[in-house]
Amino acid sequence: MTDTGAVVADLPLIDAHCHPIAAGTPDPATFALAATEADVAPPAGHSALDGPAGLAIRRWCPPVLGLPAGAPIGDYLARRAELGAAEAGRRLLRAAGLSQLLVDTGLDGPELASPAELGTAAGAGVHEVVRLERVAERLAERGVSASGFAAAYRDALAAATVDAVAVKSVLAYRSGFSDEVAERPSPTKVRTAVGRWLAETARPDRAGRVRLDDPVLARFVLWCGIDRGLPVQIHTGFGDRDLRLAAADPALLQPFLAAAEPSGVPIVLLHCYPFHRRAGWLAQVFPHVSVDLGLTVGQVGARADAVIGEFAELTPFAKLLFSTDGYALPELFLVGAAQFRHSFGRLLGRWVADGVLPAGDAERVAGLVAADNARRLYGL
Amino acid sequence: MTDTGAVVADLPLIDAHCHPIAAGTPDPATFALAATEADVAPPAGHSALDGPAGLAIRRWCPPVLGLPAGAPIGDYLARRAELGAAEAGRRLLRAAGLSQLLVDTGLDGPELASPAELGTAAGAGVHEVVRLERVAERLAERGVSASGFAAAYRDALAAATVDAVAVKSVLAYRSGFSDEVAERPSPTKVRTAVGRWLAETARPDRAGRVRLDDPVLARFVLWCGIDRGLPVQIHTGFGDRDLRLAAADPALLQPFLAAAEPSGVPIVLLHCYPFHRRAGWLAQVFPHVSVDLGLTVGQVGARADAVIGEFAELTPFAKLLFSTDGYALPELFLVGAAQFRHSFGRLLGRWVADGVLPAGDAERVAGLVAADNARRLYGL
Amino acid sequence: MTDTGAVVADLPLIDAHCHPIAAGTPDPATFALAATEADVAPPAGHSALDGPAGLAIRRWCPPVLGLPAGAPIGDYLARRAELGAAEAGRRLLRAAGLSQLLVDTGLDGPELASPAELGTAAGAGVHEVVRLERVAERLAERGVSASGFAAAYRDALAAATVDAVAVKSVLAYRSGFSDEVAERPSPTKVRTAVGRWLAETARPDRAGRVRLDDPVLARFVLWCGIDRGLPVQIHTGFGDRDLRLAAADPALLQPFLAAAEPSGVPIVLLHCYPFHRRAGWLAQVFPHVSVDLGLTVGQVGARADAVIGEFAELTPFAKLLFSTDGYALPELFLVGAAQFRHSFGRLLGRWVADGVLPAGDAERVAGLVAADNARRLYGL
Repeated sequence: MTDTGAVVADLPLIDAHCHPIAAGTPDPATFALAATEADVAPPAGHSALDGPAGLAIRRWCPPVLGLPAGAPIGDYLARRAELGAAEAGRRLLRAAGLSQLLVDTGLDGPELASPAELGTAAGAGVHEVVRLERVAERLAERGVSASGFAAAYRDALAAATVDAVAVKSVLAYRSGFSDEVAERPSPTKVRTAVGRWLAETARPDRAGRVRLDDPVLARFVLWCGIDRGLPVQIHTGFGDRDLRLAAADPALLQPFLAAAEPSGVPIVLLHCYPFHRRAGWLAQVFPHVSVDLGLTVGQVGARADAVIGEFAELTPFAKLLFSTDGYALPELFLVGAAQFRHSFGRLLGRWVADGVLPAGDAERVAGLVAADNARRLYGL
Repeated sequence: MTDTGAVVADLPLIDAHCHPIAAGTPDPATFALAATEADVAPPAGHSALDGPAGLAIRRWCPPVLGLPAGAPIGDYLARRAELGAAEAGRRLLRAAGLSQLLVDTGLDGPELASPAELGTAAGAGVHEVVRLERVAERLAERGVSASGFAAAYRDALAAATVDAVAVKSVLAYRSGFSDEVAERPSPTKVRTAVGRWLAETARPDRAGRVRLDDPVLARFVLWCGIDRGLPVQIHTGFGDRDLRLAAADPALLQPFLAAAEPSGVPIVLLHCYPFHRRAGWLAQVFPHVSVDLGLTVGQVGARADAVIGEFAELTPFAKLLFSTDGYALPELFLVGAAQFRHSFGRLLGRWVADGVLPAGDAERVAGLVAADNARRLYGL
Repeated sequence: MTDTGAVVADLPLIDAHCHPIAAGTPDPATFALAATEADVAPPAGHSALDGPAGLAIRRWCPPVLGLPAGAPIGDYLARRAELGAAEAGRRLLRAAGLSQLLVDTGLDGPELASPAELGTAAGAGVHEVVRLERVAERLAERGVSASGFAAAYRDALAAATVDAVAVKSVLAYRSGFSDEVAERPSPTKVRTAVGRWLAETARPDRAGRVRLDDPVLARFVLWCGIDRGLPVQIHTGFGDRDLRLAAADPALLQPFLAAAEPSGVPIVLLHCYPFHRRAGWLAQVFPHVSVDLGLTVGQVGARADAVIGEFAELTPFAKLLFSTDGYALPELFLVGAAQFRHSFGRLLGRWVADGVLPAGDAERVAGLVAADNARRLYGL
């Protein structure tokens, strides 16, 4: 590892997008599924962990719990259980070296620890990112009229974001991206859509939750997010199978990005893979658009060397942000951070060695991606 | 080459998707076109072989016929003719080290040797893969009524697949992929479509063959393939120019894959390039979906180092399958196998050296992709 | 660097697609924006030059003006101003080692030097590439009737291209690509479209210019370009934000390419990124289609090592062309040329070292991409 790699290895990171961790100890099957985007077990006799993301867990996590790197996953889980979820989680999160966490609180429930508990375990400051759809769903869960919804939503969003540093859209999971996203739905359309939603699909599930799945309302809450004025994080690219991959291509958001530009609101395209080169172009040509490495780096594991390089083909250095997208498992925070330090450090180290990046710029560029861009963009 | 590379170099491979070889000796122009996806000669004075696929042939094949690697293609073809097609073919196929072959018999005709002849030349066991569209075309060639087609097709498919290990769809070459593929066409729609097809386009060509080109029927036979219960191979991604590349993106099959999931039938996405990262995501999130490296590895030649890496970014190791997609030229079998051994061996070797893949796992992972996944999935 | 790298380092290049340079000295803000595809300044305190394209400028240009490689951009611009735009431009352009330039004259105006001045500064021969849309716009600027437009356009195109070696389409910037491009618009449709265009949108801007933005007319002029018989360059892939990236995918041109094939007219897909693998497939399967590296190589900077490799996965060597797409800044010509020499030289050198490319073929392949393909295709 070059000196540049060493620089990245020691940088405190701002995790610009993550989720709460689980409150208890997952059983092995739950652990395996939580580690990837799969929600169903793979063929009998095979584990979802037997792939790049699982190798990355085995590479980066066992040493933190006192086992050799590459330890079999069974040994690792046994050691994890022996230490207890709290102690193992604390060690893993501390080893990630995260100074601040931006926590999307849209995934909530009794099985998850609070953001404050996550922050304490990680030894990091915590900031909230409010999921736009969840605010609407909570309104429906508590009861709201179709005619009062739009105003109630704006009030609820204002109240929910008093201390937030950003809002987040999961439009990719609801209607996908299309030209229509560029159009702010009219009050009449919103009222009709709310009426339909409340009457037809906004039924509570067993946990008492409803799901905002109406395309008009999904666009409405995104535009309310723009109006709120905080940076808007948008899930793009891969994720779990609830999304339609072909409709999660950030290039399909181009008309929306152009329409939102006059607002001056910063927009961060999360994940992006496998459309990350298109996202890089959007970040180059739109002054308000940035891209976030979260999820991708941890999921592709060792291939992050190449994939981060692809993210960096067009994206200005001031527009590229580190995050882990960690969720449920503390391992995902450590893997996201360690793989980023390793792969981005290698990329910069190679660039310095090859005369691509002047040595005097390396630390500055590393610092931008690791933390400084997030600090500026989210006003931390 | 590392020890890991050596492991892959010696593995017996199961060629999970290939075609018959030509019965005779191709002339140089035919050889050049058969080696790539082009079907028309390139600019005067230039050969279709002057590119990555041609370099791969010159790299891997001449040594097997007693010439130095990199021999000019003219020298190579002269040597090939000197040995005779049978002896050259035997040497090339044996050098590929294939233990079993899954042969798509949908491309048939007097110019091709039988699958059994291929197996004998290769010293490998042979299993049949039945092309769904061809079964329908044979019905039309022999005469079938519109009203009797659906039942006759199911009967013919059952008869044709008594000894088959899989069926194959070339929907990409007929209507391309769209949301509609997820819908099983109704009996009425099928009857209307058959009537139209038989009346209008199911005319025999000079060789007495008809072509199934109706989109409804193309979907119908795919769903009959699902009903048959054998693994379904689907051509996705690039191929020859008869397909529309933009409509061969496997991500466009997502609704179909979700609709077919309850059947429990394994689905293998063939080729995938340049959409292979999207295919990897489908293989991660759908328990019944796998991806196959055939065609791609041989066509991109030396670039397979990077391309196989991209395939392996999200795909679980139990879902990635080797094949050559060899067709007509024995060279394509050797190139597919040799380039795979070389490039996948390098990838695993680098991963072991870098601490990504524990050395104790390397042989197992290599074996999964080389043969074990195919053995399990196709029940060999 | 290997001997192969040295071969590429010394090759005279034909710049198969570029634009005029600016007549004067740009101020720092203008310089920064001209160096990338952005047209708006990035976040306060950050420069569009702080990214891959800016690093490439700092790597390749300062040594030519007597500063060390990697010099800060401020130092570089001060030195540039000290030398004067003319002297700095001459040095930069000479250092690019371009023997001939194909200049798209569609971007014109008093702020730009003439193609002849560019040629003199570069010490290179100059050939004209006529932009199809600009010929129509000039007709509208001078006054043309709707009924006389089609004939007048053909006459004007013939006159404008008497000495041209190619025509160019910027359809990607007007209507984007779709199936409809394959259909030659009927005379009636053209007449209607001209009437609408002249009446509604063909209003001169402050500089007295009009913009051809009607989709029917954009297709009409493309087909007139095919009829003209000269090679047709088509902008595909990324560019500035006036284009819709999702509609600039060259794979969407497949029906057009098939429809234009009988004409025998060579078609060159420019830029292509991030759809360059799709473009490579089009170049493999269509005998009349080639791909051009311009813009991409300079913009992705050091990542060109990987990106050129991706271009070369399917593209036959006789179908891959070097260009810079240089525009306004002489730096873009040097960066395009130097990065190409460096990255393509590395690729070929690695291929020779690995036994992929026989050493005896390396110089020939390098020469094809650097100049010989352009010489043959454009009849230079």
